[in-house]
Amino acid sequence: MQMGMIGLGRMGGNMVKRLREGGHEIVGFDMNPESGRDMDSLEALVGALKTPRVVWVMVPAGVPTESTIAKLGELLEPGDIVVDGGNSKYTEDREHAASLAQRGIGFLDCGVSGGVWGAERGYALMVGGSAEDYATVLPIFETLKPEGEYGLVHAGPVGGGHFAKMVHNGIEYGMMQAFGEGFATMMRSEYVTDPAKTMASWRSGSVVASWLLDLFENATKDDPTLHNVPPVANESGEAKWMVEAALELGVPTPTTAAALWQRQDSRGAADDILRVVTALRAQFGGHVTKIDEIATH
Amino acid sequence: MQMGMIGLGRMGGNMVKRLREGGHEIVGFDMNPESGRDMDSLEALVGALKTPRVVWVMVPAGVPTESTIAKLGELLEPGDIVVDGGNSKYTEDREHAASLAQRGIGFLDCGVSGGVWGAERGYALMVGGSAEDYATVLPIFETLKPEGEYGLVHAGPVGGGHFAKMVHNGIEYGMMQAFGEGFATMMRSEYVTDPAKTMASWRSGSVVASWLLDLFENATKDDPTLHNVPPVANESGEAKWMVEAALELGVPTPTTAAALWQRQDSRGAADDILRVVTALRAQFGGHVTKIDEIATH
Amino acid sequence: MQMGMIGLGRMGGNMVKRLREGGHEIVGFDMNPESGRDMDSLEALVGALKTPRVVWVMVPAGVPTESTIAKLGELLEPGDIVVDGGNSKYTEDREHAASLAQRGIGFLDCGVSGGVWGAERGYALMVGGSAEDYATVLPIFETLKPEGEYGLVHAGPVGGGHFAKMVHNGIEYGMMQAFGEGFATMMRSEYVTDPAKTMASWRSGSVVASWLLDLFENATKDDPTLHNVPPVANESGEAKWMVEAALELGVPTPTTAAALWQRQDSRGAADDILRVVTALRAQFGGHVTKIDEIATH
Amino acid sequence: MQMGMIGLGRMGGNMVKRLREGGHEIVGFDMNPESGRDMDSLEALVGALKTPRVVWVMVPAGVPTESTIAKLGELLEPGDIVVDGGNSKYTEDREHAASLAQRGIGFLDCGVSGGVWGAERGYALMVGGSAEDYATVLPIFETLKPEGEYGLVHAGPVGGGHFAKMVHNGIEYGMMQAFGEGFATMMRSEYVTDPAKTMASWRSGSVVASWLLDLFENATKDDPTLHNVPPVANESGEAKWMVEAALELGVPTPTTAAALWQRQDSRGAADDILRVVTALRAQFGGHVTKIDEIATH
Repeated sequence: MQMGMIGLGRMGGNMVKRLREGGHEIVGFDMNPESGRDMDSLEALVGALKTPRVVWVMVPAGVPTESTIAKLGELLEPGDIVVDGGNSKYTEDREHAASLAQRGIGFLDCGVSGGVWGAERGYALMVGGSAEDYATVLPIFETLKPEGEYGLVHAGPVGGGHFAKMVHNGIEYGMMQAFGEGFATMMRSEYVTDPAKTMASWRSGSVVASWLLDLFENATKDDPTLHNVPPVANESGEAKWMVEAALELGVPTPTTAAALWQRQDSRGAADDILRVVTALRAQFGGHVTKIDEIATH
Repeated sequence: MQMGMIGLGRMGGNMVKRLREGGHEIVGFDMNPESGRDMDSLEALVGALKTPRVVWVMVPAGVPTESTIAKLGELLEPGDIVVDGGNSKYTEDREHAASLAQRGIGFLDCGVSGGVWGAERGYALMVGGSAEDYATVLPIFETLKPEGEYGLVHAGPVGGGHFAKMVHNGIEYGMMQAFGEGFATMMRSEYVTDPAKTMASWRSGSVVASWLLDLFENATKDDPTLHNVPPVANESGEAKWMVEAALELGVPTPTTAAALWQRQDSRGAADDILRVVTALRAQFGGHVTKIDEIATH
Repeated sequence: MQMGMIGLGRMGGNMVKRLREGGHEIVGFDMNPESGRDMDSLEALVGALKTPRVVWVMVPAGVPTESTIAKLGELLEPGDIVVDGGNSKYTEDREHAASLAQRGIGFLDCGVSGGVWGAERGYALMVGGSAEDYATVLPIFETLKPEGEYGLVHAGPVGGGHFAKMVHNGIEYGMMQAFGEGFATMMRSEYVTDPAKTMASWRSGSVVASWLLDLFENATKDDPTLHNVPPVANESGEAKWMVEAALELGVPTPTTAAALWQRQDSRGAADDILRVVTALRAQFGGHVTKIDEIATH
Repeated sequence: MQMGMIGLGRMGGNMVKRLREGGHEIVGFDMNPESGRDMDSLEALVGALKTPRVVWVMVPAGVPTESTIAKLGELLEPGDIVVDGGNSKYTEDREHAASLAQRGIGFLDCGVSGGVWGAERGYALMVGGSAEDYATVLPIFETLKPEGEYGLVHAGPVGGGHFAKMVHNGIEYGMMQAFGEGFATMMRSEYVTDPAKTMASWRSGSVVASWLLDLFENATKDDPTLHNVPPVANESGEAKWMVEAALELGVPTPTTAAALWQRQDSRGAADDILRVVTALRAQFGGHVTKIDEIATH
């Protein structure tokens, strides 16, 4: 089928490639003239599509997605459908859907997992929105997803796709932290000679066999102790949203939150906490507090 | 090759089957006369094996393993090898190895993962001990492990096999807790219609694709809300050992520990903590404390 | 000075008593005719006060506070001041202040700590709002607070009082959980004969000496093992808000969150997590899952 | 009464001063000739005491305490009593008591809290051992403790004093972390103008009033943002022991452990965990991994 794709970066560009290989006619646009775009404006892209149109938005969450959807609301016509495939927060989807609905335009939110591997392996897709809109875009989803029976779900009403993706990423945080704790424990122990090789051996037959473990072997192939990797980790936002959503819903998430905080701590988020602890210790016990003293303790 | 197997329960029995299918000559013994044992005493088993013997101990950790290894120490001869394939703590391995070494008997500790699925899928094996003893028993390991390049590792010196298995199980705790937190969050939300179906969809193409997720689909096939499963979880001991080992080594394990405590809490382990909290709240705020009042709040 | 008090429950009633003993002229109103109210309507209360009026709202957070402030917005006049002394969320204060400001009415948010002990011990007050409004109500604050130099702070602009109170309560959660963990550990150990007596001994000379520890001795005087207290704890909402605010701000709060989740778990919040864990264990290991089996394990 | 004191450092020296002011005859020894010691050898100290002797050991835990008690075991006579007032682990007390008992020498373990403030404020003491030995040393305890009814407890049998002190310190970790989380949250918020002043105001009338809060005001008097204090905190070992003991006993300690791990993280303990997280993110998402790139993100 025909579809417009807005955003031809690493994710969007790879998806277009997979879709074209799957026989779809994709018209692409990106702000960047060097992106390999087909059209040089949003207006031109909309003009190039036959009605009822489907336009997939694959740009960074927040302002870029906001403004793109707002503009599409002006350019598109009743019966058209917008798909937000970025990492928007689920609460924003309802606003987008409501404002597009006022003009008769449909909306689907689609969480996309798979990273740079999706191009060949297929993307895991979680979709929120009406059954009707879902059915319209289904041929696209079918091409993007991996072969086989898994990798695509109509998760729920509008917001459900991004909610599911958020939870997916929260779980991912917990799993990565769990592998990290295991690796770190073995690294400090005299019992395990080569922690990376030991973990790679779990890829078959073990309970923790997983795609992350497959990637772990890749990552450690040339750097088994990972000492070329900095001990600092960034966040993508979704684990934070999941912990917030869970707090709202009254669900405890100690593992997801621990994984989130571990990353935040690596970038200094706990510094003021530690200052209080050290200041109090100095007060009651005369413990060391000066930076140069700490360096030698 | 020829080997003695002590313990023919669910694990040991299945392993014997896989080994015999692999062409090995296994002589089995179990305390239980109805276990399908070949010999009716440890002495008879030892007598039936040609030297140098290999005897695999697959009985519950703790006293049963202790006493079996002690007896084998008396019955076996220099050059023989004992393999402890149970869930012993890594610290015990050194004691076992040392006492057997006094009589010239070798020792390997072997962590075995794979559960009831190992019989057909193969067992992930992590082995601790000398290179020489490992080489001797290698044909057995090769048959037990899954096909392909993974599933077997010589993890380190004596204790390394059980240390690696302990860490493996600690990671498993964290992963299961992470999946649980995600499922629970979606169960309480109005955004995701069918959390179990959504999670099953992640089996392909997603970052959290894993064997645990495959099992999760199995588990939820007939009970998508899991409401037939009690909200109580038991422990196997290994996550506790891992957190203890990590404390000893100075490695933080917030995710593994959170998973452990979640299970302990489900069996009342935090009751005295909660009593303190509620008693204090009643003191300063006149908050509700009586059981029947709580029931209606 | 003269002031209107709306809400004559346990908190409001005690505060009126303390204020009257301090020489203030308080006009009280409560929805409940048996509250000892001076006026039988909000209108009458407003009519009874000389301008510029000060009206303190001491009713439950949420709808009761919302509607009371909305009504006061209609009844009061420019130059009057509303004080919200309840447990409103800091984000609501800005809305209240903005809507009252449109009519020229001032607003202060005042977090109040001290519980049922405040009547005699004095209340710790944290106030948010303008310096001018703060100065106007200062005589009231001075009477409500404990004697001495502590117990009252102009914490910041509108919202600052409730933000500070929220953080105060979050800290309180962490402290109570810490005492609980200590008590529970000693209760299970054979080393400490009487955990309650041991903890009470820390009231002098120790680093953990605190008002909570004073209350702990009270609580355990007739029930040293606390076995008459149910192992279930409720929440007041403020720790949840603090963890949410900290997530928003990028500050890790593992201790506060652990205390919150411990309470939530005691009321079944983790049930779906545990179901996943137990269902998965049953899948890979054939572990026990039926309720009656668990009862005997 | 007469007593020998071994170890005249900050703690021991201050205690001797308080004891002498209380009318006791203290004979002091320290390895350091400049310590103001009365005797220049352990032998001389033992020789200077009338039987039955009481000797208080106030030296660092571990080897110094071990070797001192071992030597005392040779020098003392039946009926004498050794008090270990250092920070030994409770498990070591039983070994010390058993080896001294073989020679008829009594043993008490005494946890001492109060830090540098104890000299004037009195020390909180937790004692483990027999009722008889406790009664013998009671006059000493009575002088060291603060005035009033609190600050001294016969916590249990041998080991009980150090067990109680260990739990005390674990609680202290949780409390300090809780204050730290509150301070850090306010520091990042625009709602609270002066977090240190706000916290100091809680010293009266609030639920979190405590000695630690008194010390916090001291600590922030000249440095309200604590920016002269390094964001790094050391450990004393006792929280780690408490978490280990609680794991052994099956008691969850999420708050105590979080406080411990926060400190460990500040000294790089989680580095290998973070390396795994960042290496995996780079694998699946092409996320930033190089140190110089991180510096600019």
